[in-house]
Amino acid sequence: MTTLKVAVEDSPPEYEWLGGRGLTARILNREVSPTCHPLGKHNKIIFAPGLLAGSRFSASGRLSAGFKSPLTQGIKESNVGGTAGEKLGRLGVKAIILEGQPDDTKLYVIKVTKDGATILPADNLTGLVNYAVAKELKTVHGENVSLLTIGPPGERKASMATVACTDMDGMPSRHLGRGGPGAVMGCKRVKAIVIDDTGAKPIAARREAAFKALVKDYATFMDENKGANLVRAYGQMGGLTWISGRNHSLPVRNFTSGAFEEANKIGGKETIEYLTGQGSQWGIACMPGCLQCCSNIVRDKEGKYLTSALEYETAAMLGANLGIDDIYAISAMSRLDDDYGLDDIEMGATLGVTADAGMMSFGDSARAIALVNEIGQGTILGRILGEGAAVTARAFGISRVPVVKGQAVPAHDPRVENATGVTYCTSPMGADHTAGDILFRQSTPAEAVKASKQAQINVAIVDCLGLCLNAFMDRAYPMEKVTEMVNAQCGLDLSYESLQEIGKAVLKEERAFNLNAGFAPSADRLPEFFREEPSPPSDAVFDVPDSEIGSFWDF
Amino acid sequence: MTTLKVAVEDSPPEYEWLGGRGLTARILNREVSPTCHPLGKHNKIIFAPGLLAGSRFSASGRLSAGFKSPLTQGIKESNVGGTAGEKLGRLGVKAIILEGQPDDTKLYVIKVTKDGATILPADNLTGLVNYAVAKELKTVHGENVSLLTIGPPGERKASMATVACTDMDGMPSRHLGRGGPGAVMGCKRVKAIVIDDTGAKPIAARREAAFKALVKDYATFMDENKGANLVRAYGQMGGLTWISGRNHSLPVRNFTSGAFEEANKIGGKETIEYLTGQGSQWGIACMPGCLQCCSNIVRDKEGKYLTSALEYETAAMLGANLGIDDIYAISAMSRLDDDYGLDDIEMGATLGVTADAGMMSFGDSARAIALVNEIGQGTILGRILGEGAAVTARAFGISRVPVVKGQAVPAHDPRVENATGVTYCTSPMGADHTAGDILFRQSTPAEAVKASKQAQINVAIVDCLGLCLNAFMDRAYPMEKVTEMVNAQCGLDLSYESLQEIGKAVLKEERAFNLNAGFAPSADRLPEFFREEPSPPSDAVFDVPDSEIGSFWDF
Repeated sequence: MTTLKVAVEDSPPEYEWLGGRGLTARILNREVSPTCHPLGKHNKIIFAPGLLAGSRFSASGRLSAGFKSPLTQGIKESNVGGTAGEKLGRLGVKAIILEGQPDDTKLYVIKVTKDGATILPADNLTGLVNYAVAKELKTVHGENVSLLTIGPPGERKASMATVACTDMDGMPSRHLGRGGPGAVMGCKRVKAIVIDDTGAKPIAARREAAFKALVKDYATFMDENKGANLVRAYGQMGGLTWISGRNHSLPVRNFTSGAFEEANKIGGKETIEYLTGQGSQWGIACMPGCLQCCSNIVRDKEGKYLTSALEYETAAMLGANLGIDDIYAISAMSRLDDDYGLDDIEMGATLGVTADAGMMSFGDSARAIALVNEIGQGTILGRILGEGAAVTARAFGISRVPVVKGQAVPAHDPRVENATGVTYCTSPMGADHTAGDILFRQSTPAEAVKASKQAQINVAIVDCLGLCLNAFMDRAYPMEKVTEMVNAQCGLDLSYESLQEIGKAVLKEERAFNLNAGFAPSADRLPEFFREEPSPPSDAVFDVPDSEIGSFWDF
Repeated sequence: MTTLKVAVEDSPPEYEWLGGRGLTARILNREVSPTCHPLGKHNKIIFAPGLLAGSRFSASGRLSAGFKSPLTQGIKESNVGGTAGEKLGRLGVKAIILEGQPDDTKLYVIKVTKDGATILPADNLTGLVNYAVAKELKTVHGENVSLLTIGPPGERKASMATVACTDMDGMPSRHLGRGGPGAVMGCKRVKAIVIDDTGAKPIAARREAAFKALVKDYATFMDENKGANLVRAYGQMGGLTWISGRNHSLPVRNFTSGAFEEANKIGGKETIEYLTGQGSQWGIACMPGCLQCCSNIVRDKEGKYLTSALEYETAAMLGANLGIDDIYAISAMSRLDDDYGLDDIEMGATLGVTADAGMMSFGDSARAIALVNEIGQGTILGRILGEGAAVTARAFGISRVPVVKGQAVPAHDPRVENATGVTYCTSPMGADHTAGDILFRQSTPAEAVKASKQAQINVAIVDCLGLCLNAFMDRAYPMEKVTEMVNAQCGLDLSYESLQEIGKAVLKEERAFNLNAGFAPSADRLPEFFREEPSPPSDAVFDVPDSEIGSFWDF
């Protein structure tokens, strides 16, 4: 972006079997100084579809973005559903690397087609929110393109700024949410990437018979899987009442409780049925061919489209964690987050801290919405909040702040979910449930470390392939069959053991970046209050000793 | 402070020969978890006079404060002149340790006398600035007490909040400035410490003849020393024109130049003579018996007391670094910083970043003063700025920010002063010239590392003793004679070599805390712009390779 030039390069041979998260980590470690400023010219943001992207496997089109995070100051991989990953896969694009930055503040769009890429002026999009950007770009480039876009906070380089990705309806409702990818794209002055796969076709599997058998096997598995069917019917949000009422690991009022007395108003069967009765839809796929269909379309009481992808994390962090039980208010906040391009999880944790600072009352959804607008509009207060929970706590002198490595703890309380807590501590991403969450409390610290390790390795594999966690790992679809999918698509003969070695290598590569970015192993810690304040009603505390956490990396 | 109880304890035998910085580092490593929240109940702030405090040696009364820093998240020792250190030494107090914190937000004063210490209610002082607090407390406790106080930003736990210490006129003009000691004292809800040494006497030297000889030797040395006489006449500020015009290491307009075209209006002989002509005084001692007398009393044009201790760093950071050439405006800002309890250095760097963010123009002293008031008054904008340069840069999306480990680079540009640059990188304090600055550019990176190492070791020694850097090290008074001072006062037979081993041990103890607080060796880096942007007019860049910086700790 310094010279506003596109270079289309063949992928080096050594990258042939790398994809998604693994490829971004490799490129970052090769090309980006770990101590560079995340918003400076030396940082890069790498968009890489998974190794199976463009194939005809279900739910294989997740797109990874890798960058040094302005939120954590460490390595970051964030990934997203929607349609962009699949299109890039079909186009044979292994990665889009944004590097450098212009001297001025003009904005640009990058258009990717089968013929290459071009950089187009985009000052007309300055200050537009994501839905407006998507509308404009679809008018110019056609309804069938995929879009990666940033809102005004991304332009301003706010650390909680996301990159939105369009869903199957062309709505920018899916987000590369965590760690500030929108800020890094903003500092490169790229408002949007337009992906037009006209003329591209699905990538055929190298072994057609094996491919067909696996497609059939997976379809049968999903049809027979109880969890899959529940998620099809009620989405991820369906599980909220269980997390609250049974597992007691829901964040409530800035992590002061694990159970929300109004959980059935913001999640679970009752809420979904209420919303469906009002005209919303569940069982929506966010990417072509997905058999999990965990997404949704939420309409307001007048039947007008309000938002899509009202997720468990959204309802938990913007609802229970703020003491808010109004599902339409939560939906409105989610839409604002989508429009502005802001991370729901970081937002919920930040507003929780803001409430502790006396700047809003728990349960006051009008104030919460006003605060989201402060960030979206870039007011002075919004400049603080837009930097996330850790900076907000700094500004207001708050010492009880749910972050690890500067990133907000998501909606799985680590006191109950002790293995998820180990993941929060050890993941190079900071607190991130998608790096490996385990809902059930493990019996011993050693078991918690073991469970986190296996989950993080599997997640790393899945993230390299572009597969969706929800549609595979969360359903416990056997990793051996995932291995067969790779072999069928790519004509390889890998074992699950060898895939695990790849997963481990990815984790270690990410870890190496952080060790060189200023993070000592002693940065792998949860905030002290998780160890000291029992979470009602379970009264659990996080009790995995530092020495056990230290043992995580023994592999 | 959790139970509002004082425990007076004998110093453990193993602390007998520890003092000042060395003692605070030892206590922190023994008693404070490096990963604790700096504003939480597990942090402690330890005030410790040096080993020579209370003796009759000149300039031996500097007081150290040790704590985990809310600014850097690492270990911190900040030290200060004024009268408190000497009084604590005479009282035989090796350290005051503030620990725990009350459940409510009431404020307290701690009074220390020869009979022990008491905790007194102090809600009447809420929101008062330091000069007002000092006036109130002297009315109650007498004119001769020493005071350690915080202003409103300290009560609010702002990361650039200082602890003020009264000078020989009872003015709170000397500050434990760096790293946020005021915030830590604020989170303990201690508004002030009152030190009354009535009934206490100087600590006699164990070897009276040696003591007398050394006093005489030092007095002769200072009288004959050209630098000492210049500093007596013109203070530290006297050197500003040389730093600008000859050394080219002055920070100008957020470190975009090393020379200020109006340097003679904000420092140097001409400025001092102008101010003196207007009724200000130079050659003032900040602690009893000091022979260096580098301080001053600045009066406004009507002859009214405005501020004391208008320092080089103040004039450089609040003047040149902001493009401000009005010495009275700088003095007014310095007074505001003293009143609110804010670090001049962090302030100057923060406002420099603020200017780059378009929130003020370089040279606009009225706006700069208004911004200081925003912090003092705790406005929303002030909440950002009060967190220092790194957080301000985060909030406004600025990637060119002069900080190391979250602490602002002081008024010695590391591109020219390459050994000072090594100190900024390696000091466990973050960017700190008082950890070991070397004005002259060293010929090679290896020489720069060597010079920084020797300076940091000597500084650590001097900081353990409570001696003033300006009055000893900066004058090149031989460290062998400093060793003799220790031996005469304490009845020891140390060699300078053994003192150096103690200095090294202190540095390593501090380093160990940081390694356990999340900082990897790779955190020892200057911001990239110091390597990439030549500083006019020298056109120097910081060019000490990372590998050389890594070699610093080989001792």
